[in-house]
Formats: sequence, structure tokens, C-alpha cells
Amino acid sequence: MAEIKHYQFNVVMTCSGCSGAVNKVLTKLEPDVSKIDISLEKQLVDVYTTLPYDFILEKIKKTGKEVRSGKQL
Amino acid sequence: MAEIKHYQFNVVMTCSGCSGAVNKVLTKLEPDVSKIDISLEKQLVDVYTTLPYDFILEKIKKTGKEVRSGKQL
Repeated sequence: MAEIKHYQFNVVMTCSGCSGAVNKVLTKLEPDVSKIDISLEKQLVDVYTTLPYDFILEKIKKTGKEVRSGKQL
Repeated sequence: MAEIKHYQFNVVMTCSGCSGAVNKVLTKLEPDVSKIDISLEKQLVDVYTTLPYDFILEKIKKTGKEVRSGKQL
């Protein structure tokens, strides 16, 4: 089985509608995305997935939200 | 010159971050999108463009926002 990686993105989200939109886009990638943790308070999006980092980054960028930073943990 | 069409979408947007995200995604389509009017209050996104309806609809859907309805005026 492909290795599950953990990416963390700092994303500008100002309401639950914003975080909900990011969640909706990432949920569509299931089952290749196995877990999603979004903290509106911390502005963090944690993604557990077998998919490449750039692919996930691109999907988040297409929501129109600003991605301040991102990394693989 | 290609005909400029006017599409109107009813989009769930709950804060200025939400409307800002839709605006950012559509602004990237300039100059093929010539004008964008977004009313958070009315939940309406008016787009003036030479691009096809489905193409614009897809771009808005990729923001993760729910599109309640849409039409060409």
C-alpha cells in the first residue's frame, strides 16, 4: 500500500463557510485522502493522503483561499 | 469579437472571505472575464464573459462553495 503522508497548510479562512469549502474540496479526494483536520482557529489544514503534495496544494489554491504556507510533516 | 454573455449564479457565501475567494478565482480568468459583480448580501455572483457557462460554473464549484442555482441572463 502506498505510504500515507501528512501535509499541513496554513490557509486564510475567516468563517465556517471558508473551512467548510476547503473540507468539501478535500473530501472529494477520498479515499486517496484518508483524514482531514481543519482548525479555523489555528488556520491550519492537516491532510493525510497518498497523493502528492503539489496536487493537494493545487486543490486548496483552487478554492480561492490564500495559502500562507505548507509543509510535509 | 466574441459575444460577451452575462451569467448569474446564486452561491452560498457567508463572509467576505467567501466572496473574496470566488472573486479571486474569477479574476484569474481576465481578460476573458470582463466584469464580476459579487453581492454577499444577495448571495449573487454576476459574471460577464466570452467563456462558456459550464466552464465558469466549474471554476466556482472548485472553490468548494455550494452553487444553489445559475442562469444566463
